[in-house]
Amino acid sequence: MITKLDLRNFYIAPDAPWKLRWDGAVLAGAVLATVLAPLNLAFDFSDSVFFLLVDIGITLLFIADIIILFHTAYVDKRRLVTDKKCIRMRYLKGWFWLDLFAAVPFFLFAGPAYLTINRVARFARITRILKLISGARVIGRLKKTKINPNVMRLALMIFWLLLAAHIIATGMILVGGVPADLPDGMRYLQAFYWTVTTLATVGYGDITPDRNNPLQLLFTIITQFIGVGMYGFIIGNISTVIANIDIAKSQYREKMERINTFLKYRNIPHDLTKRINDYYDYLWESRRGYDESSVVDELPFSLKIQVSQELHRDIITKVPLFKGANHSFIRDIILNLRPVVYTPGDYIVRKGELGEEMYFISRGAVDVVSEDESVIYATLQEGAFFGEIALLLSSPRNATIKAREYCDLYSLDKRTFEKILEKYPDFAKEVAKMAEQRRKETEAAAKKKKS
Amino acid sequence: MITKLDLRNFYIAPDAPWKLRWDGAVLAGAVLATVLAPLNLAFDFSDSVFFLLVDIGITLLFIADIIILFHTAYVDKRRLVTDKKCIRMRYLKGWFWLDLFAAVPFFLFAGPAYLTINRVARFARITRILKLISGARVIGRLKKTKINPNVMRLALMIFWLLLAAHIIATGMILVGGVPADLPDGMRYLQAFYWTVTTLATVGYGDITPDRNNPLQLLFTIITQFIGVGMYGFIIGNISTVIANIDIAKSQYREKMERINTFLKYRNIPHDLTKRINDYYDYLWESRRGYDESSVVDELPFSLKIQVSQELHRDIITKVPLFKGANHSFIRDIILNLRPVVYTPGDYIVRKGELGEEMYFISRGAVDVVSEDESVIYATLQEGAFFGEIALLLSSPRNATIKAREYCDLYSLDKRTFEKILEKYPDFAKEVAKMAEQRRKETEAAAKKKKS
Amino acid sequence: MITKLDLRNFYIAPDAPWKLRWDGAVLAGAVLATVLAPLNLAFDFSDSVFFLLVDIGITLLFIADIIILFHTAYVDKRRLVTDKKCIRMRYLKGWFWLDLFAAVPFFLFAGPAYLTINRVARFARITRILKLISGARVIGRLKKTKINPNVMRLALMIFWLLLAAHIIATGMILVGGVPADLPDGMRYLQAFYWTVTTLATVGYGDITPDRNNPLQLLFTIITQFIGVGMYGFIIGNISTVIANIDIAKSQYREKMERINTFLKYRNIPHDLTKRINDYYDYLWESRRGYDESSVVDELPFSLKIQVSQELHRDIITKVPLFKGANHSFIRDIILNLRPVVYTPGDYIVRKGELGEEMYFISRGAVDVVSEDESVIYATLQEGAFFGEIALLLSSPRNATIKAREYCDLYSLDKRTFEKILEKYPDFAKEVAKMAEQRRKETEAAAKKKKS
Amino acid sequence: MITKLDLRNFYIAPDAPWKLRWDGAVLAGAVLATVLAPLNLAFDFSDSVFFLLVDIGITLLFIADIIILFHTAYVDKRRLVTDKKCIRMRYLKGWFWLDLFAAVPFFLFAGPAYLTINRVARFARITRILKLISGARVIGRLKKTKINPNVMRLALMIFWLLLAAHIIATGMILVGGVPADLPDGMRYLQAFYWTVTTLATVGYGDITPDRNNPLQLLFTIITQFIGVGMYGFIIGNISTVIANIDIAKSQYREKMERINTFLKYRNIPHDLTKRINDYYDYLWESRRGYDESSVVDELPFSLKIQVSQELHRDIITKVPLFKGANHSFIRDIILNLRPVVYTPGDYIVRKGELGEEMYFISRGAVDVVSEDESVIYATLQEGAFFGEIALLLSSPRNATIKAREYCDLYSLDKRTFEKILEKYPDFAKEVAKMAEQRRKETEAAAKKKKS
Repeated sequence: MITKLDLRNFYIAPDAPWKLRWDGAVLAGAVLATVLAPLNLAFDFSDSVFFLLVDIGITLLFIADIIILFHTAYVDKRRLVTDKKCIRMRYLKGWFWLDLFAAVPFFLFAGPAYLTINRVARFARITRILKLISGARVIGRLKKTKINPNVMRLALMIFWLLLAAHIIATGMILVGGVPADLPDGMRYLQAFYWTVTTLATVGYGDITPDRNNPLQLLFTIITQFIGVGMYGFIIGNISTVIANIDIAKSQYREKMERINTFLKYRNIPHDLTKRINDYYDYLWESRRGYDESSVVDELPFSLKIQVSQELHRDIITKVPLFKGANHSFIRDIILNLRPVVYTPGDYIVRKGELGEEMYFISRGAVDVVSEDESVIYATLQEGAFFGEIALLLSSPRNATIKAREYCDLYSLDKRTFEKILEKYPDFAKEVAKMAEQRRKETEAAAKKKKS
Repeated sequence: MITKLDLRNFYIAPDAPWKLRWDGAVLAGAVLATVLAPLNLAFDFSDSVFFLLVDIGITLLFIADIIILFHTAYVDKRRLVTDKKCIRMRYLKGWFWLDLFAAVPFFLFAGPAYLTINRVARFARITRILKLISGARVIGRLKKTKINPNVMRLALMIFWLLLAAHIIATGMILVGGVPADLPDGMRYLQAFYWTVTTLATVGYGDITPDRNNPLQLLFTIITQFIGVGMYGFIIGNISTVIANIDIAKSQYREKMERINTFLKYRNIPHDLTKRINDYYDYLWESRRGYDESSVVDELPFSLKIQVSQELHRDIITKVPLFKGANHSFIRDIILNLRPVVYTPGDYIVRKGELGEEMYFISRGAVDVVSEDESVIYATLQEGAFFGEIALLLSSPRNATIKAREYCDLYSLDKRTFEKILEKYPDFAKEVAKMAEQRRKETEAAAKKKKS
Repeated sequence: MITKLDLRNFYIAPDAPWKLRWDGAVLAGAVLATVLAPLNLAFDFSDSVFFLLVDIGITLLFIADIIILFHTAYVDKRRLVTDKKCIRMRYLKGWFWLDLFAAVPFFLFAGPAYLTINRVARFARITRILKLISGARVIGRLKKTKINPNVMRLALMIFWLLLAAHIIATGMILVGGVPADLPDGMRYLQAFYWTVTTLATVGYGDITPDRNNPLQLLFTIITQFIGVGMYGFIIGNISTVIANIDIAKSQYREKMERINTFLKYRNIPHDLTKRINDYYDYLWESRRGYDESSVVDELPFSLKIQVSQELHRDIITKVPLFKGANHSFIRDIILNLRPVVYTPGDYIVRKGELGEEMYFISRGAVDVVSEDESVIYATLQEGAFFGEIALLLSSPRNATIKAREYCDLYSLDKRTFEKILEKYPDFAKEVAKMAEQRRKETEAAAKKKKS
Repeated sequence: MITKLDLRNFYIAPDAPWKLRWDGAVLAGAVLATVLAPLNLAFDFSDSVFFLLVDIGITLLFIADIIILFHTAYVDKRRLVTDKKCIRMRYLKGWFWLDLFAAVPFFLFAGPAYLTINRVARFARITRILKLISGARVIGRLKKTKINPNVMRLALMIFWLLLAAHIIATGMILVGGVPADLPDGMRYLQAFYWTVTTLATVGYGDITPDRNNPLQLLFTIITQFIGVGMYGFIIGNISTVIANIDIAKSQYREKMERINTFLKYRNIPHDLTKRINDYYDYLWESRRGYDESSVVDELPFSLKIQVSQELHRDIITKVPLFKGANHSFIRDIILNLRPVVYTPGDYIVRKGELGEEMYFISRGAVDVVSEDESVIYATLQEGAFFGEIALLLSSPRNATIKAREYCDLYSLDKRTFEKILEKYPDFAKEVAKMAEQRRKETEAAAKKKKS
């Protein structure tokens, strides 16, 4: 809506795509600073022009970030706050000081390597690690993406571990735990090797602190403590990830164990036990062990209608009985369908029994069979329906219908149908006519049969 | 149905027994290739005829597997897809490229040991490990077998660990971490010993990487990282297995703790607390702490009927009252029985109280006792029933009946019985007659007593 | 009932106190055998008379146990099976062969130390460890005792770990991993020290296998694998124990977090939030966060009555209204009391409101206050009741009653009372009389007031 | 109430602020004693005046604590027990003996360093560690504070670990595991370094027990066992903490997985699936995935009313219809509001449909739109209401209303409204009048429109 840059009302949307990319860049800068600052402390890159340029770049990035953050709106209780004052207050009370510290242009103070100020500046630059903390907020937003949260969690864990190991390794070089006469790269590698060996609690003992150097001993003690904590953290995370993967499965398994204990205690024969287990396997595969209504019933009304219509619309409009019914009648019917599951071989309808429901096949196939089950008259597939006469008349079923495989049917019983009809008097009259006609037909057929 | 081999419609069923065995063979081949490829890289078996033969065998196996997979139907949403085109597309989009890579006949390129091409071929053969990934799908199918999933999980874990240790050990030989002047077997054993010592984080330090060899240091660092991850994986798995075993038990224990806290807070006397705990122990042993209806009610209608009939048929048909009732009446009765549990010493029926239910003994024994409980008239066992007069007449109970041990009874109350009777008018008349006759008998008995 | 020893029907009850003690003795023997057999293999005690005597003792114990087990009845589905044949078949199909193996009198075969037969017998005796498995069943029975299952679990874990460490230590001596020139005790201690150092993955590296001894390398590899598994087992167990302790508490905490999120989202003021948290704290302390009805309602009828009577009998009989009511009327009243909790300061009854319930104080104290709450007329304590007129007449309350502290009350509303009365026509008449009298009194009082 | 110090009835409140501070001081003293006692044993501070003064101070503190505890009331089942005898009995049966032992003035017995009595006293002083156990009760009380229980748990864990490491380190010095010729500080640092290296299972092997010193071997074995246990404890705790953080989230994730499995199985189109996921995201953010009624319904009546009034009072009193209604009528209305959630774009009311509910907007905004949705007549915000005519007349809606964003509405349907009215006959008459007037207005409007 805003075309001219109106500085008073100007604000940056926190979820603008370029803002997300910028935050990513700042995080990358923070990681780079976290890697370089301790390295610089251990090996002094003061004379390296390349390092100087990188350092200036990071500083400028951090300064620019502070300016941007002073203009970035934020979300509070699902509402975007764009008021300048609120934004400023919130930032000043929050991450501002951390960000400010990290944005100090340390390179200005760092004279040649032999000056004390250089050493101090190198130490001070360590504070840049703090920017990582404020920069890490962007990761929280990544969590909302489609990445599997367990993979995300493990990747982050490895990232933090490597960063920590890097810092500890440079620390080991600083306390003199590695021979000073080696080239820098080798010293770093040995220090990193020692760090990993210690954090992983392998502890070969080929590189150990000098027994008589208290500083090295203390540093090693602290590193080992960190190692123990890390181990706990890693194992805790992996355990939780494994347990999370399992949570639904193990609840399901626990339920099956309970049911089987009961069936065994009651001496239920083996084949029935198997059928029950098969049924639950089916439920697990198709809907993680819960039945349909528990999923749909929890939705708010508007979503429930949409899901139900998605599931049933095609079927409903096919039924001749419902031709001419208006939109809201169809909706009421759809909302009152009851999901039922039949296992292979189950009788859904038996010839001669008094019918009170009609059925819609949502998934699976059923066989219409003769009374002695020797002949299969027809096989009804998904989208078919049967028993609709039951809604009009209380007449005996005129065929036996058996489930051929696992079937998800929806049933609609006479009483519900009549209750809905009451709300639509015009359509009710039409239905009454149809019923009357049907009755006459049936009677005629019966007479014919008799005669 | 297909007798002649019709090549157009020919397909392999994915769950054919021979297919499962074939998949097992391919998996075995993949494991063998995974074991041999790194070994060959470390020790060069190019001159061994035995190795060449095995290698050719594995290659042929993998080629045959590709051909077979191009003809194997697959299951999508519980439906078998046998269409050639679908099968082909699915395989090409899926594991095909991995399988193709693994089936390259590397042995053709491997000249004598002193040629570079030999070394390249040995490296390239490492890619065979990939076949393991596609071959591992067969394990997923094994999971559906009767093997305890926890045992399965631990066995698989050990299998993967050993394979990984094998590969790392050959890597250690490659980077020269083991003296070159030892015999091959001893070199492998030392390398494997070092690997296990490192992965298990024991780290004796008797074999360590050369401090001044960056390659060995890096290899060790990576191995240690793998070791930490493995540890987490092992511990996470074992923890989950242990927790899974416990999930039902600890929920039960938590429930008991809650109940006992309440009983204690309310100063319920010790012996009543004990009886309540005994009752829950009984529930736990016989049905993992849940009551029967919660198990049966969740089943779909057809299975519910079968389980109920299995539980009650024998009993129902014995009742004189139900003689002459038709099949579906019996079914309705069975579905409306209510399970009740009595603890030892409980009164089920007291002489003189107005009875409204009849009872069927499903498990346990009850005593028919005199009013002052001094005499035991009879003991009724499993399969017996009592109180059936209550369904006909509202007369006072003529005996006291006490539970002798934990009893699982089923009760049927008068109101339910009458509601079912309404649906069977013919049988209802018969029952009315029986009731009338009974009333007369009772009155006659009463008169006799009076006079 | 059996006084004379009838050998045909003689059997040993599996839970006889002396049998439990005997099983404990057998287990102790098995542990002793498990400790001694590997030690004997490592150090050869063949010449020690003391060891011979102990060995004979253990053998006799195991033989006696077999005989006893052939006469011990067992429990199947909560029924004691005393039939000789069944007992015999079950034992022969079960632990018999293990027990038989362990009971072989190896000491008969063990000649002097320089004979091969001696060495073989020493190896064979290792099989005695198997007796530990069958003996360990007695531990399962211990689990039913009052010992905290978590403590039990940790104690058992330590016991098995120590046994395993012992066996591994003797193995290390056997493969020659410890200098042979040391005294036996020192050799064992060093081997045990090495074992613990390895299993605990500390791995100092002061005692390591000979790099060129394949047997020692293999033994160490296996030991390390065992170590990893043990670690996983220990940590898994401890994690589960810690998690089990927490299961109820963390569910409760999760619930509170959910409620507080909601209250915060809805801007509920702080003091109301605090009151709600206090209320749940109270629920947690008194009944682990669940309300009373959920505990009582799950009990079977007979236990429910007993618990309810225990809770209310004293109170009910004190109410003048219920004097003269018979036993089963009181029982019906008790079963229909509804528990309600009031938090400090809540109004239970307000002057002038139409009353429909009477209340019984089960715990806590309430104040009867004047309409402006300035005067406290009385404080009712546990066991008191009020509002009983509401059961007779629909008259306005004549006092305001406030909860002074957290109160567990039971309420009985008019409708329930009248429904129960219907079943007791005699008592109903009496109540009607009382109501009539009361009405007159009230009217009289009203007239008096007016005049 | 007590102004004069009445020694007979004098007692100390267990939760008095100064008492809490005193307990903190005693705990600090106990920690100091735990740190000093083993140090004194290892290095003998008998000649240090500073140590003597600290020791006397601690002893006096402990003696004073005993005296105070004899006068401190305690809480039993939420009641304060102030009876002298009860307090005394409880303390004597409880921590008294531990406290007494810790309060022995050991410094009286400790002569110069060369005397045996000195050594004995130094050993005996170790018992002071026991005071830590009784002193630790104060930590339990800290747990009730606002500190995050997970942070608390980890902090305590680190505290206990450091204490244990300290004691083990002094033990290592005592058994001579550290060179005796070093200065005391260095000896302690090396011993502590060895302890941490061992407990963390790093085990460099630069400091190891003397292989031929059984005492050192045994001490190391025990330390390693403790290390394993500690590791399990640490990892178990961290795992539990991580799992606890996740418990709600992972249940929610599991539920979403279940729902999505079902939606996918049923081929629900992508955009509907997304809407459903968005809805649950909204539920999660605003109320941790549970709907409002499940939170409010669990509260006891008095709190429920207060929460409901807090949520609705402002809205209700605004409705013209309810003007003139008395307090308890409003309360009944508030208690019968039903929360409903609408997702953006949902139709709440459609023009022409028969209305039966009125709505109150609690959060979010709705649009009043024309029938073809092209014009937005108005936007209603939080605190607004609509559809109130539906409570009076069954007339068709005269506008279409759509949710603009996620809306938390409350609905009140006609039937509920009428049921409540029955209890307030006076107000019912007024409402009837309003309805009559409204009907006339509507009819007049309809006539006008027609003409």
